Amino acid sequence: MSTEETTPPEPWRLISQEYGEDLRLFRIRYDRMANPRNDMEFDRLILETPDWVNVVALTTGGQVVTVRQYRFGVASLTLEIPGGVVDRGEESGLAARRELREETGFTAPRWSYLGAVEANPAVQNNLCHHWLAQDASRTHERELDDGEDIQVCVLDSDDVRRRVLEGEIRHSLVVSALCRVFDLRPSAGTGE
Amino acid sequence: MSTEETTPPEPWRLISQEYGEDLRLFRIRYDRMANPRNDMEFDRLILETPDWVNVVALTTGGQVVTVRQYRFGVASLTLEIPGGVVDRGEESGLAARRELREETGFTAPRWSYLGAVEANPAVQNNLCHHWLAQDASRTHERELDDGEDIQVCVLDSDDVRRRVLEGEIRHSLVVSALCRVFDLRPSAGTGE
Repeated sequence: MSTEETTPPEPWRLISQEYGEDLRLFRIRYDRMANPRNDMEFDRLILETPDWVNVVALTTGGQVVTVRQYRFGVASLTLEIPGGVVDRGEESGLAARRELREETGFTAPRWSYLGAVEANPAVQNNLCHHWLAQDASRTHERELDDGEDIQVCVLDSDDVRRRVLEGEIRHSLVVSALCRVFDLRPSAGTGE
Repeated sequence: MSTEETTPPEPWRLISQEYGEDLRLFRIRYDRMANPRNDMEFDRLILETPDWVNVVALTTGGQVVTVRQYRFGVASLTLEIPGGVVDRGEESGLAARRELREETGFTAPRWSYLGAVEANPAVQNNLCHHWLAQDASRTHERELDDGEDIQVCVLDSDDVRRRVLEGEIRHSLVVSALCRVFDLRPSAGTGE
């Protein structure tokens, strides 16, 4: 039996809204909000940004297409699944196909939607859409921007699971996508 | 057999670094970086922020302690697990205990570390640490800041799993923590 222990909260009241600096990936917004519990007012930071997408791409043999690249936030090389920003007006499924092809040269005949998560609902207004590509194979040349340097690694699914558990694969949005396809509990077996 | 399909990338070279606005939760930094693949230079945005923490808290009966609150980024009520910012100099395990107690009034005798993820390695420099609390029970009054309005909901584990799959629980960092404790594959059984 699930129980609600305390009073349900209400939505906060928007008092005013003001835009700050445009950081390109993010546009800063400040919302002045009133807490319905005590009517006190607070300025809240919001980072407006487009939806994002990432792809769990499995080959016919069940291997996973991953990418290694230098990430500026953590100032180190990371191992992730392909993904990126959904262009304005673009369907997330098309963005997923585009990012997979551009970053890895892989395409796939079978696609299914794995759902979406909020990247950071406290501060950001966007979703990250997760897609599954099956029977993926390398069919194209990659199209890397001048600002990219990406290695493609095709990994056994057990190897992917191990690298998550050991902390080598640790981008939260990548883990969120992978857990829809693999059992990522430390106590689990091979996850398949 | 896992294979590396293309040349391994190298770390980028830092040319210069400059701080921008302090957004309180985030401090803006711009790094001018050289791509080792082509020596071209790019300005990259980094949002410096402290580590975060969240807690999968299970009661003796195996129920999960969750919180519902208004989130400003997505401008709606969300259902999440307890969590917050690790204070300067604080151990993440102590932050986990503190956030659980302050937000829900629950404490627990058994704690274990579930690992950490990068909240967003492309842009942010921080980790989110995941903790598991077992045999949790309500022992304290809650301590909500004036800027908080949080409802505590104690949910059956099957109910938590269902709400993730149906998209009601969809904070990426919450899903990342939960998938270390529950099997979140749509194809899975009860996940226990």
